[in-house]
Amino acid sequence: MPNKYKTESEFLTHYNAADFDRPSVTADILIFSVSSAVGENWRRANKKSFSVLLVRRDDWPDLGKWNLPGGFVGIRETAIRAARRILDNETGVKDNVYLEQLYTFDAIARDPRMRVISIAYMALIDKSRLHHAAAPNARWFDARLQSGKLILQSGDLTLKESDLAFDHAEIIKTGILRLRNKIEYTDIAFDMMPREFTLGELQQVYEAILGRALPTAAFRRTIAGKVAATGKTQVGFGHRPSMLFRRKK
Amino acid sequence: MPNKYKTESEFLTHYNAADFDRPSVTADILIFSVSSAVGENWRRANKKSFSVLLVRRDDWPDLGKWNLPGGFVGIRETAIRAARRILDNETGVKDNVYLEQLYTFDAIARDPRMRVISIAYMALIDKSRLHHAAAPNARWFDARLQSGKLILQSGDLTLKESDLAFDHAEIIKTGILRLRNKIEYTDIAFDMMPREFTLGELQQVYEAILGRALPTAAFRRTIAGKVAATGKTQVGFGHRPSMLFRRKK
Repeated sequence: MPNKYKTESEFLTHYNAADFDRPSVTADILIFSVSSAVGENWRRANKKSFSVLLVRRDDWPDLGKWNLPGGFVGIRETAIRAARRILDNETGVKDNVYLEQLYTFDAIARDPRMRVISIAYMALIDKSRLHHAAAPNARWFDARLQSGKLILQSGDLTLKESDLAFDHAEIIKTGILRLRNKIEYTDIAFDMMPREFTLGELQQVYEAILGRALPTAAFRRTIAGKVAATGKTQVGFGHRPSMLFRRKK
Repeated sequence: MPNKYKTESEFLTHYNAADFDRPSVTADILIFSVSSAVGENWRRANKKSFSVLLVRRDDWPDLGKWNLPGGFVGIRETAIRAARRILDNETGVKDNVYLEQLYTFDAIARDPRMRVISIAYMALIDKSRLHHAAAPNARWFDARLQSGKLILQSGDLTLKESDLAFDHAEIIKTGILRLRNKIEYTDIAFDMMPREFTLGELQQVYEAILGRALPTAAFRRTIAGKVAATGKTQVGFGHRPSMLFRRKK
């Protein structure tokens, strides 16, 4: 087809985007963190668990189910800016947060209202940076995969995949697998650590994310080049004092 | 806000997606391949280069510039299905092709017409599978990064970043960096190899993607577990016959 217009500005004047059906676009955000879970064994009182922030829906569709924090991307807003806005609303933390685009989810019928494409982001935060508790509708859920299925737990409340709205179980699983993959070859785990930590705590973070125990000697060899001793010690729970380390830049 | 509606179906009946401004969504596809370049030295006649398929725009906007094959995603079509459709149109290859979602690009003004979000895909193909030459408007360009800038070359034609439409130089660079990262820890390079290849050819593919020479002995140790000898040999150009290998499944 030859061009009807002689110049780009003439073309643009006549172009009408509304001639074509367009989808809606949301940003959804996986906010991952590690937290100290109270174990059944007092010696394990500071054991780390791996958790994700979910919000209970108070509107249709999927009223009453749990979903990731998210919202529509403004027509003059980038998706990452929308993700930062939502992250700030939910946690009060906005800056110096590890935030990456995870994946774009676009199954045709993932939202019953209309075609909605979700650009999903993954944020990693150190919980000690949170200035306030989660919003009233929001809760931190410990997350784990059991035979490939997602299990979420917050106090007495246990969620399985069907308790989550839309395709958010799939988004969370995609995020967990990305994170597992990344902690093997990047320093991403340090974004969930406080400034100073013991090597035992760091190992627990790796174990919580990977969902399995790691042999201590091999783990310490792997991370030896990434940490520096602070010279300080921490008194543990029934342990002898542990050396405190920081990330080596 | 309390819910106006008693049931999800009542809510859906009253929901109008057109109440909100929506972006347009395209799928753009990076089709990467390796090809044999004719070198200045006859002993290197089978040297591999790394290339990407580009199409010259014959319409506004950016008329005359080069861009990635792409198109709007249908309102009842997933983005990956759109990517496969475009891949098939451009190359005649559709099945058994490595295809992954690369990243979603959504800078506000990346398209002068309107807000357009591009879900970019990356395909890796072995050029020997192509049944026909590239479409009349399309050409394979050898791609390399020089001081972080993209240089594209096809015969006598050299393109720099400003010769590409939209933000496609950024998309191509993102794809090259993803691919460089992935060939280090996955078997992705084999998707660009014919069924049988010499270890020299395989090394050239790694070198073409990484943009640097690799020490042969170290390279062979790295890939030793991933290849199996076929027992056949190939007569090279002025070389002694080379053993042919295949990917070990």
